[in-house]
Amino acid sequence: MILTNTTIATVAPDGTYGLIANGAVVLSGDRIAWVGAGDEIPAEMADAPRTDLGGRLTTPGLIDCHTHVVHGGNRAREFEMRLQGASYEEIARAGGGIVSTVSATRAASADELVASALPRVDALIAEGVTHVEIKSGYGLDCDTELMMLRAARDIANQRPIRVSTTFLGAHAVPKEFDGGADAYLDEICIPTLRAAHAEGLVDAVDGFCEGIAFTPEQIARVFEVARELGLPVKLHAEQLSHLGGTQVAARFGALSADHLEYADEDDARALAAAGSVAVLLPGAFYTLHETQAPPIDAFRRHSVPMALATDCNPGTSPLTSLLLTMNMGCTLFGLTPEEALAGVTRHAARALGLTDCGTVTAGARADLAVWDVAHPAELSYRIGFNPLYQRIFGGAA
Amino acid sequence: MILTNTTIATVAPDGTYGLIANGAVVLSGDRIAWVGAGDEIPAEMADAPRTDLGGRLTTPGLIDCHTHVVHGGNRAREFEMRLQGASYEEIARAGGGIVSTVSATRAASADELVASALPRVDALIAEGVTHVEIKSGYGLDCDTELMMLRAARDIANQRPIRVSTTFLGAHAVPKEFDGGADAYLDEICIPTLRAAHAEGLVDAVDGFCEGIAFTPEQIARVFEVARELGLPVKLHAEQLSHLGGTQVAARFGALSADHLEYADEDDARALAAAGSVAVLLPGAFYTLHETQAPPIDAFRRHSVPMALATDCNPGTSPLTSLLLTMNMGCTLFGLTPEEALAGVTRHAARALGLTDCGTVTAGARADLAVWDVAHPAELSYRIGFNPLYQRIFGGAA
Ligand SMILES: [Zn+2]
Ligand SMILES: [Zn+2]
Repeated sequence: MILTNTTIATVAPDGTYGLIANGAVVLSGDRIAWVGAGDEIPAEMADAPRTDLGGRLTTPGLIDCHTHVVHGGNRAREFEMRLQGASYEEIARAGGGIVSTVSATRAASADELVASALPRVDALIAEGVTHVEIKSGYGLDCDTELMMLRAARDIANQRPIRVSTTFLGAHAVPKEFDGGADAYLDEICIPTLRAAHAEGLVDAVDGFCEGIAFTPEQIARVFEVARELGLPVKLHAEQLSHLGGTQVAARFGALSADHLEYADEDDARALAAAGSVAVLLPGAFYTLHETQAPPIDAFRRHSVPMALATDCNPGTSPLTSLLLTMNMGCTLFGLTPEEALAGVTRHAARALGLTDCGTVTAGARADLAVWDVAHPAELSYRIGFNPLYQRIFGGAA
Repeated sequence: MILTNTTIATVAPDGTYGLIANGAVVLSGDRIAWVGAGDEIPAEMADAPRTDLGGRLTTPGLIDCHTHVVHGGNRAREFEMRLQGASYEEIARAGGGIVSTVSATRAASADELVASALPRVDALIAEGVTHVEIKSGYGLDCDTELMMLRAARDIANQRPIRVSTTFLGAHAVPKEFDGGADAYLDEICIPTLRAAHAEGLVDAVDGFCEGIAFTPEQIARVFEVARELGLPVKLHAEQLSHLGGTQVAARFGALSADHLEYADEDDARALAAAGSVAVLLPGAFYTLHETQAPPIDAFRRHSVPMALATDCNPGTSPLTSLLLTMNMGCTLFGLTPEEALAGVTRHAARALGLTDCGTVTAGARADLAVWDVAHPAELSYRIGFNPLYQRIFGGAA
């Protein structure tokens, strides 16, 4: 199949749009065979059937590289209580907070977890998302963590989308565990990681490095096990305070460090040296009324690739629109629309260790999104509007 | 038709949800004939065919009471230039700002204006909107203002939605007019208002009272003409500074004053005395990085009804999701989800002078939205997610 009469945003290595006007894309099986100007299609490919895209814009399929989309329940009642003036204590007493999501997740069956995640995944798919990362971390016991990862894997059977799974046992110390964080890591988290890896359920290992969760030293202990197992790491770091997680992530050559509101110039330097991606999550920043934005200029100065993701989760970012995330990245963090597009394609792929997607390049997977817009800046400009015209997944429309 | 097995948020006169568990709604033609508990359906109505809603939530159809959804062009390029660091002067020199929308609107035909607005209107419809207000104000000459209002009326022929039209000739002084604001009002705006009214194109009269637009005295001159023509008024007031527009609006018994970030306690008192609605527009607040939120507590103290609207416009709020507007109203302005729902139903109807919609009540229009959620707070809680199950417009699904 040949897509013709389309403006292509290939997303170039420097993160610019890499625009090709009057372009064409030749698809062969689930791969892109050729990309270029419409009047330069190689003769040996020129006989394939053609689809005229009417001048519309083609981009890589979008990649949501940080989600907690598999989880039980929702926290709408807690959202309402807070706006009615309830204190955090009152909410906790009413069973709110992460505890409520852990309870609801443990109470769900694997099938229920998948069924409740699918409408959220469908919302992503409807906006041209072709790859989604999904974390565990609401089980905090061996059985439920494994169930979450199996549910995440099953999403890829239920829908035309690829899934990267991330083990996030080091998300919180469960309420019922009275041995403290280190004992939780030794007795639950690390054994569960080994079990999950043995079952082939883990593409990467993540943690939450924060005053309310784990210290950099504790995170390093989990990352040592990941290294032993040959698994890449990533980290929730410097979201609410500067605790030093980014330096740990960089030391372990992390795929990414995520959130980063309180990261500084040294952290940017460390990420650049390690080749790690800075994953920015404006949905959580917005929901939590944060005022300190991540150090975008430092990331630019040190050429740290920046990705954008929904952080879809029931507590601090019940967000299922990657297009809105792009707008938030621009409006709240000052990214350019060009950076926003690279953030949900090329750099999002890199944050997941993927080398076969995120750009419109010969040899890459034929995961594409075709948009009813004239210019890629429109994808970031509009708020709550979906101009998707067609989504192509593995060469299939 | 009888809708059964549904939780109903009737939206009560005090702005609370007005919940009915296990409810039923009897529809007759384009009206609601009866609302109540499912086991109390009056015998004489009980024979009508039934639709089981499976426990889903029924609300009034949503009402977007402040939009500029009819306009030419878009301002994505300007959005991008600003994020790339261009100054307002550079953007103006590149043809940006409201001038670019006026030019694009004047250059469009009536059919083109309708065609470009329809995808935005469709986005609203997809979220259960059954009534939309549409303003003129990007023509700023007689022919184009009339064309915008005709296009707005035509939307109601093209789609199953009702439209209220608002004349906003006093939006800005057009660049080519060198006689100043007062001369523009006398020579263009007021004669155009009379012509539009004579053609039956005007449901209400609006203005933009701001340092960069018109003074309270100038607005009062336009409102005098509206009064003479028997047309209700509303006003963009106290958005960027406290200029006193709200007091003028209240003095003329306005349907609403809109934006209101810089309104004060006296303004709240005046709106309450006049019976005017405070229309809050968080999309513009978000896009413009405003930090001063409207005085919600003052509105509550004085029982000023608060509505929420998209303000859909190409410059300061390219927003086409009323659900996201509800979330922004809660997250950015601190409204409760209950206030947010009343703000896009009962109070939005009042802001348009409508008495036949905005609640689920016997005698009201059968404009309803059925949602795949358990509790109405979920409508405000989620971000970028559309749980609409069914939309009923004038009794038709
Ligand atoms: Zn996260
Ligand atoms: Zn407006």
